Amino acid sequence: MFDKFREECAVVAIYGHPEASKLAYLALYAMQHRGQESAGIVTSDGRDTYNHKAMGHVADIFTTEVLRDLPGDIGIGHTRYSTAGDTALLNAQPFSVSCNKGRIAVAHNGNITNAQELRRDLEQRGAIFQANSDTEVILHLVAHSAERTLAGALRDALLQLEGAFSLVFLAEDRIIVARDPQGFRPLAMGQMALKGKVAHVFASETCAFDLIDAVYLNDVEPGEMVIIGPEGVTRERYAPKRPLSQCVFEHVYFSRPDSIVFGRPVEESRENLGRLLAREAPADADIVVPVPDSGVAAALGYSTESGLPFRQALIRNHYVGRTFIEPSQAIRDFGVKLKLNPVRHLLEGKRVILVDDSIVRGTTSRKIVRMVRNAGAREVHLRVSCPPTISPCFYGVDTPTKNELIASNNTVEEIRRFVEADSLGYLSLGGLRKAVDDTRHEYCYACYTGDYPTELRDLEQLVAIQRK
Amino acid sequence: MFDKFREECAVVAIYGHPEASKLAYLALYAMQHRGQESAGIVTSDGRDTYNHKAMGHVADIFTTEVLRDLPGDIGIGHTRYSTAGDTALLNAQPFSVSCNKGRIAVAHNGNITNAQELRRDLEQRGAIFQANSDTEVILHLVAHSAERTLAGALRDALLQLEGAFSLVFLAEDRIIVARDPQGFRPLAMGQMALKGKVAHVFASETCAFDLIDAVYLNDVEPGEMVIIGPEGVTRERYAPKRPLSQCVFEHVYFSRPDSIVFGRPVEESRENLGRLLAREAPADADIVVPVPDSGVAAALGYSTESGLPFRQALIRNHYVGRTFIEPSQAIRDFGVKLKLNPVRHLLEGKRVILVDDSIVRGTTSRKIVRMVRNAGAREVHLRVSCPPTISPCFYGVDTPTKNELIASNNTVEEIRRFVEADSLGYLSLGGLRKAVDDTRHEYCYACYTGDYPTELRDLEQLVAIQRK
Amino acid sequence: MFDKFREECAVVAIYGHPEASKLAYLALYAMQHRGQESAGIVTSDGRDTYNHKAMGHVADIFTTEVLRDLPGDIGIGHTRYSTAGDTALLNAQPFSVSCNKGRIAVAHNGNITNAQELRRDLEQRGAIFQANSDTEVILHLVAHSAERTLAGALRDALLQLEGAFSLVFLAEDRIIVARDPQGFRPLAMGQMALKGKVAHVFASETCAFDLIDAVYLNDVEPGEMVIIGPEGVTRERYAPKRPLSQCVFEHVYFSRPDSIVFGRPVEESRENLGRLLAREAPADADIVVPVPDSGVAAALGYSTESGLPFRQALIRNHYVGRTFIEPSQAIRDFGVKLKLNPVRHLLEGKRVILVDDSIVRGTTSRKIVRMVRNAGAREVHLRVSCPPTISPCFYGVDTPTKNELIASNNTVEEIRRFVEADSLGYLSLGGLRKAVDDTRHEYCYACYTGDYPTELRDLEQLVAIQRK
Amino acid sequence: MFDKFREECAVVAIYGHPEASKLAYLALYAMQHRGQESAGIVTSDGRDTYNHKAMGHVADIFTTEVLRDLPGDIGIGHTRYSTAGDTALLNAQPFSVSCNKGRIAVAHNGNITNAQELRRDLEQRGAIFQANSDTEVILHLVAHSAERTLAGALRDALLQLEGAFSLVFLAEDRIIVARDPQGFRPLAMGQMALKGKVAHVFASETCAFDLIDAVYLNDVEPGEMVIIGPEGVTRERYAPKRPLSQCVFEHVYFSRPDSIVFGRPVEESRENLGRLLAREAPADADIVVPVPDSGVAAALGYSTESGLPFRQALIRNHYVGRTFIEPSQAIRDFGVKLKLNPVRHLLEGKRVILVDDSIVRGTTSRKIVRMVRNAGAREVHLRVSCPPTISPCFYGVDTPTKNELIASNNTVEEIRRFVEADSLGYLSLGGLRKAVDDTRHEYCYACYTGDYPTELRDLEQLVAIQRK
Repeated sequence: MFDKFREECAVVAIYGHPEASKLAYLALYAMQHRGQESAGIVTSDGRDTYNHKAMGHVADIFTTEVLRDLPGDIGIGHTRYSTAGDTALLNAQPFSVSCNKGRIAVAHNGNITNAQELRRDLEQRGAIFQANSDTEVILHLVAHSAERTLAGALRDALLQLEGAFSLVFLAEDRIIVARDPQGFRPLAMGQMALKGKVAHVFASETCAFDLIDAVYLNDVEPGEMVIIGPEGVTRERYAPKRPLSQCVFEHVYFSRPDSIVFGRPVEESRENLGRLLAREAPADADIVVPVPDSGVAAALGYSTESGLPFRQALIRNHYVGRTFIEPSQAIRDFGVKLKLNPVRHLLEGKRVILVDDSIVRGTTSRKIVRMVRNAGAREVHLRVSCPPTISPCFYGVDTPTKNELIASNNTVEEIRRFVEADSLGYLSLGGLRKAVDDTRHEYCYACYTGDYPTELRDLEQLVAIQRK
Repeated sequence: MFDKFREECAVVAIYGHPEASKLAYLALYAMQHRGQESAGIVTSDGRDTYNHKAMGHVADIFTTEVLRDLPGDIGIGHTRYSTAGDTALLNAQPFSVSCNKGRIAVAHNGNITNAQELRRDLEQRGAIFQANSDTEVILHLVAHSAERTLAGALRDALLQLEGAFSLVFLAEDRIIVARDPQGFRPLAMGQMALKGKVAHVFASETCAFDLIDAVYLNDVEPGEMVIIGPEGVTRERYAPKRPLSQCVFEHVYFSRPDSIVFGRPVEESRENLGRLLAREAPADADIVVPVPDSGVAAALGYSTESGLPFRQALIRNHYVGRTFIEPSQAIRDFGVKLKLNPVRHLLEGKRVILVDDSIVRGTTSRKIVRMVRNAGAREVHLRVSCPPTISPCFYGVDTPTKNELIASNNTVEEIRRFVEADSLGYLSLGGLRKAVDDTRHEYCYACYTGDYPTELRDLEQLVAIQRK
Repeated sequence: MFDKFREECAVVAIYGHPEASKLAYLALYAMQHRGQESAGIVTSDGRDTYNHKAMGHVADIFTTEVLRDLPGDIGIGHTRYSTAGDTALLNAQPFSVSCNKGRIAVAHNGNITNAQELRRDLEQRGAIFQANSDTEVILHLVAHSAERTLAGALRDALLQLEGAFSLVFLAEDRIIVARDPQGFRPLAMGQMALKGKVAHVFASETCAFDLIDAVYLNDVEPGEMVIIGPEGVTRERYAPKRPLSQCVFEHVYFSRPDSIVFGRPVEESRENLGRLLAREAPADADIVVPVPDSGVAAALGYSTESGLPFRQALIRNHYVGRTFIEPSQAIRDFGVKLKLNPVRHLLEGKRVILVDDSIVRGTTSRKIVRMVRNAGAREVHLRVSCPPTISPCFYGVDTPTKNELIASNNTVEEIRRFVEADSLGYLSLGGLRKAVDDTRHEYCYACYTGDYPTELRDLEQLVAIQRK
Repeated sequence: MFDKFREECAVVAIYGHPEASKLAYLALYAMQHRGQESAGIVTSDGRDTYNHKAMGHVADIFTTEVLRDLPGDIGIGHTRYSTAGDTALLNAQPFSVSCNKGRIAVAHNGNITNAQELRRDLEQRGAIFQANSDTEVILHLVAHSAERTLAGALRDALLQLEGAFSLVFLAEDRIIVARDPQGFRPLAMGQMALKGKVAHVFASETCAFDLIDAVYLNDVEPGEMVIIGPEGVTRERYAPKRPLSQCVFEHVYFSRPDSIVFGRPVEESRENLGRLLAREAPADADIVVPVPDSGVAAALGYSTESGLPFRQALIRNHYVGRTFIEPSQAIRDFGVKLKLNPVRHLLEGKRVILVDDSIVRGTTSRKIVRMVRNAGAREVHLRVSCPPTISPCFYGVDTPTKNELIASNNTVEEIRRFVEADSLGYLSLGGLRKAVDDTRHEYCYACYTGDYPTELRDLEQLVAIQRK
């Protein structure tokens, strides 16, 4: 479904390409689904750094003029959703500062779970903070480190962080990228051939490589730091091995189906989700209908496994403006209607299996169920391609608090009644594990289990997981 | 496929609803696929008329403030693509003028084939033209009519027009809508209940009714004029019956699948196209892949009929910015890549049937075939859900001239070689007729046959259908 | 004083210069005081015409890109204030149309007093009007003329017009300019040397020539039409001689002091106004203070004649934004304060002669008198450099109706009490005549006398000159 | 003259007024001459702080909506020119940060001469800098101070600063303002009565008080810090007495003539400058003409003293757009002509004394002299109302380096020849001292003498004062 969850961002880094800013921009464009509210790029020509960030969609921010003012052959970029209440542009990334390690810039995908604590500590030591973001904390740690090299200071800093982070750094003549030891968020590494030389590319998702004709090599390893500078490429493990906690939700919903995430094609996971869901939660029905766009692959899997025909009976409106004005005589299911319209001809008289990838508060699901029924469906069987979402995420996905999550406070039958479906089925945790082939327990399922793979200390976090 | 053809517009008319401008705006929003470059609304409160038109997407043009300044319970609206070379805002619709019939406004979907001739004649009689559009011609005909009533003058005017037109007029206290006698372009009629009264709604497609909770009643008949004013609703046939020429391309490509057009669900036609295509042009292959978004329904039909699995192996990027900046080191298939990305995992090693709804110049199709092959497909069998497009349209769809249409100058085998497919198959004209159930010859197929259902007189038209 | 009166516009025309649009733009920029709310330019390269008009200030509308899209060596331009209630962009000029005389464009400074009548008549003959402006009427007259040449049709049209007009026309290969037979509004003619050839320039004020290095030759004569085309320059008298009615207010207030208007330096007239005012209305005082900017020259004249020192004791704020937000605890004289601030040091304890160029409603004058007194002035003697304004203008200056003009309804003593001045003195009509050296009765003084030099027929005009 | 020098900014602070943001905005508006490229306001309602800053003119940035989002009864504001090369918005003020002293914001007028040194030192201690501004240094000093209260930390910080600063701070419930011990830049203190209570106001110039109806009390003393919080008003001397170095250029050029700066009316100083200039550098001439706007008061003084008539023979264009496009056939003195136009009628045949307030590079002066001569002046005698500018300013005025200052490298006669004047006269240093009544050596004249009242250490500063 759409707009239910928002992750904070996508990152990209380019090393050794004369058009670094253009490539960064195209890579961000390919990852636009990970953030549409602000974007930024910082480049360096070895002497000076250049940056531009602005509110808006990446495709609108970067014009020929803007890119012309971002010269240099190394660059990093970022695109994000702004979370509620932040003063948006101030928190836009990359952050670019000057400190005792020189002029450095950073962009971040993830969430530091001990950021508040680190920040309090840094403030005691005289640090001043201009924004609310975790990322500024990382820069302060680098600046406060006694290590003299950037790589050394960065290692120092990273070891103090807890939580999820895929980071890209830019210094005058080098790129450093790193991934947290538990590997929450993805970070892929690629290459481009360039007149006998090789340019290096890093991005949150491999679909970014496809657009710029880069070749996907492998992932930055959890706990690994990759330094690329005039002296060449250095890959080093900055932290000891730890059990992995790769975000399963990247496969369920967040990543593009054409990306390879954590080494697996996302599309394959999604189709598996649908197939296993069909086995675990079959229904006596006529057609299988996805809630577009993210439910399509799972619905195809469900259709294949169940033998029931797949039908695109909900049509999505692709361009949705900023604000929408409803007549005072309220329109039935207005919010959902702006985005989806049912194809009556396909639904009329049918028993419909509706495949979605999650239910958050339940209100949107109810509107869709009603919409399908109003379009003539005889029965509506809602199937969700993952287990019930019962706990908020603190690792980079913007989920509501426990109180707002319908599955945290209700049984499946209660939810079914709320969303007004004839039947409701979720995929089991086992099914989910199987779909991503998690035989070695390398994924994080905290949003489905409430078992968090890091210690939570911030008051805000503790409040979010309290039930009413 | 995307952006291959552009129709000039969508129209809407509202009568008898206190929030006429809001409904018009929502209806245009639902029909955004018919025009994304300018939009306008004119309303009347019975005394004054109010209008706003601007360049841009309908969702961005109409804000709360703008709609507040469009009071009244009758209104008409329009959204369009601007065709190359016109001074855009000047040609944006609705046109609103003052003349001897009072203050009137009009919006138009279609193309008047004798517009040049009428215009020359009107200019001789002293008319001045501010824009290039056909629509201004209609207004002049109304003003020059000796008939004293608006309806009378309109009848007079319409009888002089040749070609395609679905028109909505607004006068101080009334709405008049009309459709050309051959019924080229659609125009649907609906109603909304409103506190015991009934509001009337007209729109190019029924998906507009779905968003505003209006009920679809029937179509404005070809050759019919519907007048709604304080005295009630009058439906009159202003022109004698003529053979129908409904645009088959509305079903093949242009309309939304969730609309009912010319009384038929578009989705049903598209699925039929795919099924018949599978019968006429089978292929020994592994999977069926649509070129999104418009090829999806046909591909599903093809898959169902052939028994081959349907796979969404091309992922579409939905937000495409205004201008795109390519690195100077050109990226392979850049233009197509911005919009589509292949899912390697699904394509690798597969024999792929690629279903698209048309081939225009062939260059885009070739890029897609290459993209699919580069992503690992073993064979690529291109199937097109209609016959070869050999002749330009003069009835409201913006097709290139004969010289630019690959099928006008090449055999199917030549096209296959050009697009680099392993095989190429088109649906036959008979298949197309069957898919839309055209047993009584009520559709226009001129773009597939070159047989135009109206006389063509304008030099420009004659040039466009010459071969080099 | 500021913003009391608004004239509708400035016009410019360029013939025979490869950068016609740039020159037109610079000329409009120099005449920005005549219109700051919209501007437009139309050019022709002999084949096609190009145009751009937009809301806003001329300096912001015309960018390098916009000017690049206005090629050709002939061009006309216009800048204007929009008067209350018009749908602004629609009425922006130049108007550009296609008709039986070819593609023509026109821009207009003035006001046609029989426009309503002509319009009604044209509508009866089938004309349609898109805007409210007089200018559209002129184009219709041209199109409806039986004359076959543009010049002929234009002559035909001009002879039907009453009122004030300085017009610039552009056709494919020529410029035609004309001035009404009574010569209400100015229109100057100039030349620029250009590599052995001569380019021709016309503008409302000669300050436009100064900026583009053109030489002022003389004025287009009242009742004269000047045609410049490939065949050369033709000056013809299209109308018989009539008594002149040159707008005296151009000299009192409207034109820039550095312009030569109706053959006289404006600055000289203004200084005369001040000198004669000092003789007619002396005061026992310490200093002479102008209300900036327009009162400066008259105050200098007053100071010279009276021997009293001139002091810039009111400082003007030059950049005033679109909307101003006052605290709810109202600030004394807020509106005036945003624009003027007194210099206490100069005013304290002084007997001040305040020189302004008019009193319209009296409310602004009262605020200024109070402001000067609050800044410490012991006495405030208000002197106005023209007679009392008692009647609205129908020839291109946007004055309020008779009811709103304080001098129309009150004696000088009543006005003095209203504005709270210690004394109030106006220049006499005789003094005004003398200041502009009007020995042959060639000026219009209707706003001071109520004697209109044309017949007034429009209801709207008649209402405006009624007293309550 | 215009645009020759640019000072960095104006500041304002409001305490105890429910519409603090509106007042701050109006105060900035009144001081727009001190900065037109960015503006910002931060407010506090005692709990949260709110801020808005943007590029552009203060009158355009602050709309009703923006001000509505800046609640609270305390606020500070800032407007500035951005100096060449800075990434503008990043350096816009006020700066607002969170640190161990809580959430604080600061705005600054002036220039810290040891900022580079302090910055290097702070970076060594782990500080990170996001912008280039001195102001960020101050915030870091506050955060690094061992003092626990904000006032204490601020005292600590201020004592480490050298150079020019007038600062306004905002904390959650208080305003703190301070001025450097040498008193380089002005900072005035005022009050507003408000329903029995008193609101406190601080601003760079008293003209800000005039607009908001505040009463000017006195100046914040050099070396003084004023703290206003719930406990009342505390004025404390944070630094020992030092010789004063008030910027004389505020009186010569920078401040508005209607302001009282350093306790003196600016207008009075300027008139004195003109009078003394007339005595020191008389000329046998016919008229005295100011270069507007800043030369007017001095020209009036010159005229009064010399008995020669004052004439406004150069007219200024007030609205100058962002970019200006010159025809390729260059226009004589284009840059100056966009802003000034001569009144030929006043200049023709005259011997003209042209009064300006400075000559920087000489190129603009030459253009003006030529323009006056081209307009018919027989002789042009240039008089400058201060001594030759030979050295750059490091205390907040943006002057060019020594190499670019014509007077630094040329004799008066050489300059005369360069600017093509018939004679050239400057005011003497003694005359300047007398004009501002500097009997106790309380002003800084470094730009005229090269004697800097602070030690200069930054390499950049040392380079700027090197001669070629």
